[in-house]
Amino acid sequence: MNETMRADADQIVREAIAAVRPDAAVRRALEGMELTGRVVLIAAGKAAWQMAKTAHERLGPRVDRGVVVTKYGHVMGPIADWVCFEAGHPVPDENSFRGTQAAIDAVSGLSTRDTVLFLLSGGGSALFEKPLIPAAELQAVTQSLLACGADIVEMNTIRKRLSAVKGGRFAQLCAPARVEAVVLSDILGDPLDMIASGPACADSSTCADARRVAEKYRLPLSEATRALLDIETPKELCNVRTQITGSVRELCAAAAASCAALGYEPVLLTDRLACQAREAGSFLGSILRTHAGGGRALAFIAGGETVVRLTGSGLGGRNQELALAAAPEIAGLSGAAIFSVGSDGTDGPTDAAGGYADGGTRALLAAQGLEIDAVLAENDSYHALERTGGLIVTGPTGTNVNDVAVALLRG
Amino acid sequence: MNETMRADADQIVREAIAAVRPDAAVRRALEGMELTGRVVLIAAGKAAWQMAKTAHERLGPRVDRGVVVTKYGHVMGPIADWVCFEAGHPVPDENSFRGTQAAIDAVSGLSTRDTVLFLLSGGGSALFEKPLIPAAELQAVTQSLLACGADIVEMNTIRKRLSAVKGGRFAQLCAPARVEAVVLSDILGDPLDMIASGPACADSSTCADARRVAEKYRLPLSEATRALLDIETPKELCNVRTQITGSVRELCAAAAASCAALGYEPVLLTDRLACQAREAGSFLGSILRTHAGGGRALAFIAGGETVVRLTGSGLGGRNQELALAAAPEIAGLSGAAIFSVGSDGTDGPTDAAGGYADGGTRALLAAQGLEIDAVLAENDSYHALERTGGLIVTGPTGTNVNDVAVALLRG
Repeated sequence: MNETMRADADQIVREAIAAVRPDAAVRRALEGMELTGRVVLIAAGKAAWQMAKTAHERLGPRVDRGVVVTKYGHVMGPIADWVCFEAGHPVPDENSFRGTQAAIDAVSGLSTRDTVLFLLSGGGSALFEKPLIPAAELQAVTQSLLACGADIVEMNTIRKRLSAVKGGRFAQLCAPARVEAVVLSDILGDPLDMIASGPACADSSTCADARRVAEKYRLPLSEATRALLDIETPKELCNVRTQITGSVRELCAAAAASCAALGYEPVLLTDRLACQAREAGSFLGSILRTHAGGGRALAFIAGGETVVRLTGSGLGGRNQELALAAAPEIAGLSGAAIFSVGSDGTDGPTDAAGGYADGGTRALLAAQGLEIDAVLAENDSYHALERTGGLIVTGPTGTNVNDVAVALLRG
Repeated sequence: MNETMRADADQIVREAIAAVRPDAAVRRALEGMELTGRVVLIAAGKAAWQMAKTAHERLGPRVDRGVVVTKYGHVMGPIADWVCFEAGHPVPDENSFRGTQAAIDAVSGLSTRDTVLFLLSGGGSALFEKPLIPAAELQAVTQSLLACGADIVEMNTIRKRLSAVKGGRFAQLCAPARVEAVVLSDILGDPLDMIASGPACADSSTCADARRVAEKYRLPLSEATRALLDIETPKELCNVRTQITGSVRELCAAAAASCAALGYEPVLLTDRLACQAREAGSFLGSILRTHAGGGRALAFIAGGETVVRLTGSGLGGRNQELALAAAPEIAGLSGAAIFSVGSDGTDGPTDAAGGYADGGTRALLAAQGLEIDAVLAENDSYHALERTGGLIVTGPTGTNVNDVAVALLRG
């Protein structure tokens, strides 16, 4: 292994993730924000506790009351006299509903002068929820959507219409108070109305869309539920100002800054990567091989979220698979390395955040009798990278803004 | 369709391919080449006739004699009093052997002052051949290698050892004359000893490699053939000077120059692209979406040769599939287009050289009831692009230096 490049990789990973941590993101968002009247803080999502904690450190008693709804195991202690709920994810449960009701109560009766500081992060679709149908039926609908492979966009199109808070309806409940929304984005391209199902965002999906999804998957819906699909969500909200922060774009920008500080010329390729992990690795590897020997120190950056094509039953994740798939392309190049990490610190069902490979990786594996093609066919990138010292382990990071892959070249 | 961008695409395709045509490539190679003593021209490969014709236009009677061996239907007329052979491809036949024997005869008896001008192009592995085993057995070996899915590297490793001319052995037959080799490259990364099985190139493959391939595919070989696998090919050749020309690198450089002339800032990503066609299209599309709206006119260039994953039974090719797969990523962007072409003018079993897609392609197809995912699952890119005016048709170009894909963005 190239120790220098591995050290560079670790530093870039550390700095990029630090920049999109909820605390850093919330601090940036609060700078210059105007808070008027009474201030009610509502935080929902997997990063809710950390976002709320940071807001409390900054704002202290300026916040009149606070409600936090996050995932089980994610409340790390009390914050002032605010109410913290832990609830079910990815399937909402009674605690989701209780926490959300508390939030609704906290924002009711406010005036036009007052402010709702609404801190939203990934997971909010399940955690921030007050269903308009019996809870058991909502859970059944959510589970059948998950089971039939509906994507997050389709899932949210349905759930918005079965909810008192999603699809902009929470912002309506806050009115006439102003809503200052701070959103940690975990969906590529930051479609605001999709993140946590957009409780404070005018909804772009329509009743027709919802009916189409219901038909496509032949969802077993009651009469009452079907009727709800026909009630339109708000298409305009004039009491809301939204800041997106800590998105994959910031993750890429922070990685680029870190690369530049280490002497690499950063080249942002994309922050919307969505192709297959192995193929992205091959593509990035071919970029390095093309530029190798050109005398420049370069860092090609690709953020997004690749997908794994399952062909085997090994252990791995999309980031590890991307890095390993790049190894044959850069084999033998002394100044080339490729790494990829999930910003949440987990990659697939492993304890690693991602993987690292360099010009020596293929030979290291060959010496141990491992062929990369065979490893990839087994989806067993974890065990291969374990043997080359190519696992990147960060532990849970408390944030989730997709992945970033970096291809490094020393001139 | 965006007519301006389509016109740009057509111009870039035209100029890039023109730059790597055999005539242009040979003209570049002959500039400043020193020809001493008697000059014997040997041209072999699919572009042999055009390369020889261009050499004759430049050198005229300076060439004492010439032998041309190309594919059936590829001799377009006589060249001086040179001997032209048409022969079998991809399986060599009697005419391959006759033409090659004529070349061997033409270069024998030369002195150290004399020059062999050796013009080599793709297809030479089959076309330039004098087997050391009975022709029928060589054809059987070649056919079983093709049938069992051996790659070109494996195929050549075997064939070199069963041949009097491959793996550097032709250059040995030319000695003591100097060999000026001009090679039109059609293999990624230009591994000289693999192009046409390297008749004038020291061989990097070893007897051990050959035995390994024979075992891997359990090739049915006679005793005599097995013995030939154990005779080593030349590992050093001091009478040869080689110029690689018209390679995918020049194709990319010419595309970049053409883009620049049209006002795009060219960014060469890679000339070694080898991943799946659809995934490359998705990756390139994600690059455009990321940079869209940035106010710069950009052209991202990726040369190489992608592979098609067969999941259906439609009509298409790797270039058409790449372009179509990019369409969803750039859907709705007014100034974005992606196209990809094979420099030989054919893409898969179609009459198109490649495909073009832009921000309007997805909507055009949707209006006709076609979903791109479904089309790709059927590998039916040809019929979809036919409906959007997205086919790029050049006719046969007379060259073959892999493919180039270009992602264009108008600021």
